[in-house]
Amino acid sequence: MSLLIEPVEGIGEVAPGDDLASMLAEALRPMAPADTDVLVVTHKVVSKAEGAVVELADDGPDAHRALVEEQAVRVLRRRGNLVIAETRHGFVCANAGVDRSNARPGTAVLLPEDPDRSARRIRDRIGAVLGVRPAVIISDTFGRPWRRGLVDVAIGVAGMHPIQDLRGTPDSYGRILDVTEVNVADEIAAAADLVMGKASGLCAALVRGFVPPPGPGSVAQDVVRPPEEDLFR
Amino acid sequence: MSLLIEPVEGIGEVAPGDDLASMLAEALRPMAPADTDVLVVTHKVVSKAEGAVVELADDGPDAHRALVEEQAVRVLRRRGNLVIAETRHGFVCANAGVDRSNARPGTAVLLPEDPDRSARRIRDRIGAVLGVRPAVIISDTFGRPWRRGLVDVAIGVAGMHPIQDLRGTPDSYGRILDVTEVNVADEIAAAADLVMGKASGLCAALVRGFVPPPGPGSVAQDVVRPPEEDLFR
Repeated sequence: MSLLIEPVEGIGEVAPGDDLASMLAEALRPMAPADTDVLVVTHKVVSKAEGAVVELADDGPDAHRALVEEQAVRVLRRRGNLVIAETRHGFVCANAGVDRSNARPGTAVLLPEDPDRSARRIRDRIGAVLGVRPAVIISDTFGRPWRRGLVDVAIGVAGMHPIQDLRGTPDSYGRILDVTEVNVADEIAAAADLVMGKASGLCAALVRGFVPPPGPGSVAQDVVRPPEEDLFR
Repeated sequence: MSLLIEPVEGIGEVAPGDDLASMLAEALRPMAPADTDVLVVTHKVVSKAEGAVVELADDGPDAHRALVEEQAVRVLRRRGNLVIAETRHGFVCANAGVDRSNARPGTAVLLPEDPDRSARRIRDRIGAVLGVRPAVIISDTFGRPWRRGLVDVAIGVAGMHPIQDLRGTPDSYGRILDVTEVNVADEIAAAADLVMGKASGLCAALVRGFVPPPGPGSVAQDVVRPPEEDLFR
């Protein structure tokens, strides 16, 4: 089975209050999406549409740093201007998710308040407009310990379970697999980033050919490791 | 630009001494690969062909644990049967890369000795047989701190740089991007896993439509964070 990832074109600039879900539905219409497809949307347009944008007092590092401290519930590491912090969603990422790239000068974009809810709203609206309900992933760009370079991950999902649970699946020798839980939502988010890039202005991609694990699912519930389970917190 | 990921079919069981590179070249021939494509190969068949397979004294946890300790240069965390360890390659992963799934009963598969070299050899052989030189990524399945579920990452590359460096690239407002280094090799490895799955017996996929950053490149040199740069070691 082959996988095809197509850019969703025609979403221009997004401003607070815009009906992003309807814009996505109209952009998807000529692509004839299926219920088994997955729509990946970068969080930045979601945050902008939801008004999760903050005016900075100035364009310097101090105003930015103050906002990062405000958004963090816990700082894990600091070095120079880099802060690795946990957000109230439980995500551990640089600058507590505060991002100035692709934001209007003098502003910074925050994470959506509840990215799973954002994904559900987009999916429901697409279902109402188009009559099909592809799964939806909201993505963001995270660094990782031990490895250079950033990758896109899923911060919200709707209509799919983010984890493919292979427990009980035999390998090609009939042995039960050691690898039991694959984060397919993160893999799909990473794949979609290859099509969207960072500077292209594209904010969504449609992934076809991979039928995601059936939902409901949630990044907050199913992906974020609770502290008692986490070896690195 | 769309991305297409196709399974490379027809590679059966791989045994020590097999000429995996020639097997891959023949399996690729009907797919007419291009120099700008990326071939992703799961490390397990590479390790098997290279003889990086160990006979275990028995099938119980003690023999497995002893092998993990031997393969680890440093243990970061332990919990129950789970060991998070650094390998001599500098990778931080579960069980120091020792894997019994999809291995012949009574054996365990180790990581390739030098996955970048493995990727170069496969690429060179494909070039000699087919006259085209797609980039090659060797992948493995890693867990991450803070997030549940495993994802595939690149442990070796050839013919491409694993990191896309966007320093100096302006965003849609003309501001220089905050996100400067994207690990496209990890994103490609993750994408390919969606096609290969874990239990399907597929060991390779061809990624078309994403032109990787030109090489030479190396996971060991370009991706593994040196300890002095790492905030989590």
